[in-house]
Formats: sequence, structure tokens, C-alpha cells
Amino acid sequence: MSTQTMDLTAYAVELARKARQAGYLMAQTKGQVRDAALRSAAQLLRQRSQQIIEANTRDMVAGEQAGLGKAVLDRLKLDEKRIAGIAADVEAIAAQVDPVGQVIDGWVRPNGLRIEKVRVPIGSVLIIFEARPNVTSDAAALCIKSGNACILRGGKEALHSNAAIGQVFRDAIAGAGLPAEAVQVIETTDRSLVPILLKQNEYIDLVVPRGGESLIRAVVADSTIPVIKHYTGNCHVYVDAGTESIADRIRDVCVNAKVQRPGVCNAAETFLFHKDIAKTLLPMVCAALVQEGVEVRGCERTRQLFAKARPAGEEDWYKEYLDLIIAVKVVDSLDEAIGHINKYGSHHTDAILTLNVPAADRFVAGVDSASVMVNATTRLADGGVYGLGAEVGISTDKLHARGPMGAADLTTYKYVVRGEWHLRT
Amino acid sequence: MSTQTMDLTAYAVELARKARQAGYLMAQTKGQVRDAALRSAAQLLRQRSQQIIEANTRDMVAGEQAGLGKAVLDRLKLDEKRIAGIAADVEAIAAQVDPVGQVIDGWVRPNGLRIEKVRVPIGSVLIIFEARPNVTSDAAALCIKSGNACILRGGKEALHSNAAIGQVFRDAIAGAGLPAEAVQVIETTDRSLVPILLKQNEYIDLVVPRGGESLIRAVVADSTIPVIKHYTGNCHVYVDAGTESIADRIRDVCVNAKVQRPGVCNAAETFLFHKDIAKTLLPMVCAALVQEGVEVRGCERTRQLFAKARPAGEEDWYKEYLDLIIAVKVVDSLDEAIGHINKYGSHHTDAILTLNVPAADRFVAGVDSASVMVNATTRLADGGVYGLGAEVGISTDKLHARGPMGAADLTTYKYVVRGEWHLRT
Repeated sequence: MSTQTMDLTAYAVELARKARQAGYLMAQTKGQVRDAALRSAAQLLRQRSQQIIEANTRDMVAGEQAGLGKAVLDRLKLDEKRIAGIAADVEAIAAQVDPVGQVIDGWVRPNGLRIEKVRVPIGSVLIIFEARPNVTSDAAALCIKSGNACILRGGKEALHSNAAIGQVFRDAIAGAGLPAEAVQVIETTDRSLVPILLKQNEYIDLVVPRGGESLIRAVVADSTIPVIKHYTGNCHVYVDAGTESIADRIRDVCVNAKVQRPGVCNAAETFLFHKDIAKTLLPMVCAALVQEGVEVRGCERTRQLFAKARPAGEEDWYKEYLDLIIAVKVVDSLDEAIGHINKYGSHHTDAILTLNVPAADRFVAGVDSASVMVNATTRLADGGVYGLGAEVGISTDKLHARGPMGAADLTTYKYVVRGEWHLRT
Repeated sequence: MSTQTMDLTAYAVELARKARQAGYLMAQTKGQVRDAALRSAAQLLRQRSQQIIEANTRDMVAGEQAGLGKAVLDRLKLDEKRIAGIAADVEAIAAQVDPVGQVIDGWVRPNGLRIEKVRVPIGSVLIIFEARPNVTSDAAALCIKSGNACILRGGKEALHSNAAIGQVFRDAIAGAGLPAEAVQVIETTDRSLVPILLKQNEYIDLVVPRGGESLIRAVVADSTIPVIKHYTGNCHVYVDAGTESIADRIRDVCVNAKVQRPGVCNAAETFLFHKDIAKTLLPMVCAALVQEGVEVRGCERTRQLFAKARPAGEEDWYKEYLDLIIAVKVVDSLDEAIGHINKYGSHHTDAILTLNVPAADRFVAGVDSASVMVNATTRLADGGVYGLGAEVGISTDKLHARGPMGAADLTTYKYVVRGEWHLRT
């Protein structure tokens, strides 16, 4: 039966109901069974790599015909090596400590009531993402690891690739004795399905949209289910006073933060230089950036120190360029830097480069961001780099999960209270 | 200047902006200063008890004139003893461990990158509540303890009482050197202010509505700020097979869960009896309930065992009576009980009464509720009983905070990453 001809609402409700039921079953499974399913999925990914590549080739051909850009096609493409990498990521997730059942806290009340806060799966999670088929695998693996049921809605460009990868996970979990419905991959490209799914708050506990800002805003506007948002990354690097002796380090970190991969959310978009070192370090860093093809947009003082800089307007401080462009500003103090970051930034990832302990401490305490870096590039804000195995996204929300979200961030907790016929008096 | 004559939007934005700024300052304060402010607030509450009682008397007189019900007036009323109790609660919160700065987790990556997850205040919290003036004190104290700025919007019935209590906190925190704007009490009764405040997501991080379901639904409908919801408490007590030997305990817990305070969210609304013990225990428990003035509504099998029971319809299983009414059902198995609770319940608090270890374990694992009780009354689901000092509400959400919310639940975390000029390669 083609999903196109089905009543979309009935289809959405059925997906959501199945996820709720599968989630209740998953919550009662043992970690060794979930890990075995993941290892089996990794094995199947490798065994079926030819099939997956064939499915991917169909997507690639369709994508070329549809005139997709080179970057999108590159992210879409799967080959033996990429599939082996995806399988290895699944095994890494399997090897992690089980977050489910972890006793987060526990104590005994004076009246003998025993209270535990126990980590439990959230239940059912809807993940909406764009073209990259490796997200299908990462998201499925993290949800299985954390004992959740998931509904995966990938981009239409990766339809066949996602279906092939999704089938691997369904076969693997069914083979391990887990409910196959714990992984459901949406195989219709009908765009009107998503708004209906986003109203199934009775059955779906959480939505994670992964993709551009417009996708996330559309999800937030339609959803009656809580959404973990990861909006833009307007990331800053602040170069503190007293850092002339490590000029090369400063230059290397700044260049890395901007150019190593400019199109991603943890790339730097603004550099702030303390006025005391601006004269020496600003021109050197900017020259190195220009050599890498970066366009520099600066405040008035920046332009006096580095003539090639174009003028930066107020709007530049808010921008996530995702491109080889950097905004540069000279600040009078650490406090001005912190104030600038909190006002214009996106609370994603911001770094200080300093040799001064109190400055590092004040920056860490004062900057209101998910990740605050001391003497490291903003590009390191990443689930893999942090050791979370893989990430389901990088949250710019403050509630529930902040920063890179791993398997443990797909859990909640329950209070388990054990008494001896305790009453309330 | 009267707020009535001010432009409400400008007033809302100013409240929100001040909260954001005060929040940034609060985030950098030391626990001993926040605790000193709380102890000073407790002292001021006692010192100014005559003033507070006078303000409260104005509310009581207005309430009587407005024809408020006896129960509402009782909750509104303050006297020396109640104020002493409120002050003692504030001191108990001051005595708790500081949640801010707690290192939740920390590790070193193989490349030497040092990663810490550090607990930090959420920032600015809007708390909307109904008549009880003690909530003003609890909410302010919990927000100060957790390093947040708060905006408090109490019911109009308690306007003068809330203003007097709010002033105590503002004086206490200013006296301790903290920003007075960290506690802002809204003193206009203009109802159109709230929807405007609920759109200030740029400045306010969290909304906690405390009150009836209609209040919460209205807040959710209007808010662009994340809301922690605490909807109804449709709480269950399941009486397991094999419990005849502890009939008196069963009866006492059931009666306590239903009648000790029927109007609150953690009172029981449905009892489930395993069929094997229904014949002996169901009539005994129901008779005890009737003696306490409870109306029993039962399934078919219940009515065969207890003739006084009126028939329960499908809609009864969903109901939060908040009254001396109980729905009673005989189930064939533990699994049926778990299924019933997950289907009809509100995921608030549910209890099993049992002597059987595997049954207790399966109930704890299978019931998807914020608090799962073993051999204790549902009435114990409470921040004070759990030892959280006081609660800002009982969340029926799954994300961020679940169950009674204490000071630590008003925090989030940031990743603090320390490197030695680490790059991404």
C-alpha cells in the first residue's frame, strides 16, 4: 500500500501509537540486549554495504538530476569507507555505559522513606533532519542505546539511503528480540505529514529537528510536542590582554576556529581583541585569515589596525556567516567582551584565549553559553570530541539538554519511592 | 507612576530586561551571599509580620467582599504562626547545599582536553501562580538559592500580601549586596500583561505556572518561552495479589491516599485491585472509604463485591476528582494494572502495595510516572517530603524536570572545556 494514498492523519497517528507502545517495551529491556542489537546493526551495515550503496546511488542520480549543489551531493554520498565509518560509530555507541537505570541521586528521609532518582528513557522521540544519511544511523543508534523508540524523518534527497539504513536497524533490533517498531523510518516524502506528526503529543514525547534555522522554526511553530532546538552558532573567540608571548598559538586557534570548516555551527563568526594586544595580534591574525581566503569585517579600531578590513555594521555582530567571513572588534575590557558575547551571541560556544587565571575564571562564569572554551578552538564543541560517542544535535536551549546531546540526553528520570506503608499526616 | 497608566508592553519588556540583567549578575554570586540574603529575608518576615498581616487583612477584606469561597480565603489568610512557618521554610532552603557550580560530570579526553559539566542557574524565571501568598516566598527563595532572577505574578486576591512579602525579599537581597531586581513582584492586576510577558523569550528563560489546569493551558497557549507544566494528578494505588495478611496496612494507605487531603494533585483518584485479593480487600477498603464520606464508583466486578458502589463509566478512569470520590477497578494481572495506569493516568504519581519483590520491580519499571511509590501513599509526592526543602511545582513534563521541582531543578549546566591551544583537525 502506498503511503501517498493512505490517509495521512491515520498514518501519523499509527506511527506515533506504535512508537509509544514500542517505547514502553524498550524501557523494560536490558542494556546488554540493546547493545547486542547495536553491534548486530553495525555488522549488517557492513554486510549490506553494496545494497546500501545501490540505494544511495539512486538518491545521488535523482539528486544530480534535480540539480543539487556539490556540497549537498557530497554529504549525501555513501561509499564503502563512509559506511564502515558509520558502522564504527554504532559500535562506539554500543560500547558506552548504559544511561538507563543509572541512579542519579538517592537518599533516605528521617522517617525511613527511601528515595531514588533513576534515569529512564524519555519514551518516544521524533527526529527530523536534512540530507545526510549518516544521521539516520546515529539517531537510531542513540535512541536504541537510551531505550527509546524513534520516528526518523530524513530529507527526501536521501529517501532510498535512509530506507536501507533504517531496515538494517529494524532487522537488527528484531533479531535481538526488541520491538522492530522502536525504529520507524518515514518513507513518504509528503511534506504535509510532518505538521500532523507534530501534534501527536499524546504519543510522542520529544522532537529534535536537525538542520537549518528555517526547518527548526517551522517545527517549533507547528509542534505541540516539546522541541529541543539547536539554532544558529554565532561563536566568538576573545583574545585577552597579555597574550603577545603566544602569538603563534593565538593565530593558529583563530584560523582553525574560522576556516577549518566554516559551514558548521561551531565555527567562529566574531573575534574580539582586547585593546592592549590588538595592535600586535589583530593585524597578524587578520593577515593569516586573509591568506586563507577570509573576508574581514571590522569595527573602526580594527580598520585602523588592519586596512584590508571592510567596515562591520551593527548587523554583523548578530550574523552566523557559515562562510569565509569574520567580524572583528576591539574591546576595552574582558567585561566588554563578555557583554558583547551575551548580547549578540547565540549561546552556543565561545572561547577565551588567555594566560591569566582570573580572566579565564571570569569568562567561564560570565559567558552564558552551552560550551565555554578556555584556550581551545570553538570547533571542538561536538559530541564526538567530548566523548559522547555521537550526538543527536547540539542544543542551544537551556532546558533539559544544553550543548552536544548524547544518549544520556535522551533520558529523563523518575522518582522511585519505597516505604513501609508510610502515610501522610 | 501607576502601572495602569504605563504602556503595558514597555512595562513587560522592562521587567524582562531587568530580570535578564539581574540573572547575569546573580549567576556570578557566591552561595554564602545568597544564603545570607535568604536568612535575612526570614528574619525580616518575622520582624515585619504585623505589616504583612495588615496587608493580608486588606486582601482578606477585599476577598470577603468579592465573595471568595471559604477554602480560598483560608489559603489566603496569614497570621503570626503561618508567617513563622514561611520564614522557617526560607531558612530551610538557605541551609541546603548550593546547587550552583556543582560539577555534574567531568573527564579528560585522550588528547588532554578537559571537559566539565557545571551546574549553572537557568537565568530568568517567570512564575505565575494563584492565591496563596506563601508561594511568593517559596518561589523567591528557591530562585535566589539557585542564582536566578525571578518575576512573580501572583493572584490578584493576594495582591497586597504578595507585595509585602516581595518587598521583604527585595530588601533582603539588596542588603546582602545582590541586585534587588533579582526579585520582581508584579503589582498590576491587569490581566493583559501576562500574554505580553509570555512573549519575552529573548529575556526570560522559563515559565512555571502553578495553579489549575485552565491557568496552565492558557500559559502554554500564549508562551514563546519554554513552560514547565504540572497538569492534573490522576494518581493510582494498585493493590497486588498476596496482600491479605496486611489488610490493615492496605486499608490505611488507601484511605490516606484518598481522604487525607482530597483537593490536591497527589491524592489518589483510582484504586486497582488484583482479582485474587479483590474479594477480601476491596469491600473492606471501600467500606472504610464510605465511612470517611467517599463516594465509590466501580467497575462491574467492583459493584458485585461492594453493592454501594455506583457504576463507573469509561470517563471516570480519566478523571481527577479532587474530591471525596474514588474510581475502583478489579484487574486480572499486574500487567493490566500497569497498562491501565499508563493509558488513563497523568504520569504524576502511582503506587503499588505489595509484598512481592518481582511485582514491585516490574511496577517500578513499567509505570511511566514522575513518582512511582512502593508501599507508600501517593500523598508523599512532594518537594518537602522528598527533602527538596520546598518546591516550585510538581512537573508532569518529561523534559528537564519531572516530579517535585526544588532549587536544583531551577538550574541548567554549561560545558566548560579547557585546552592547551587544542585545534580541530
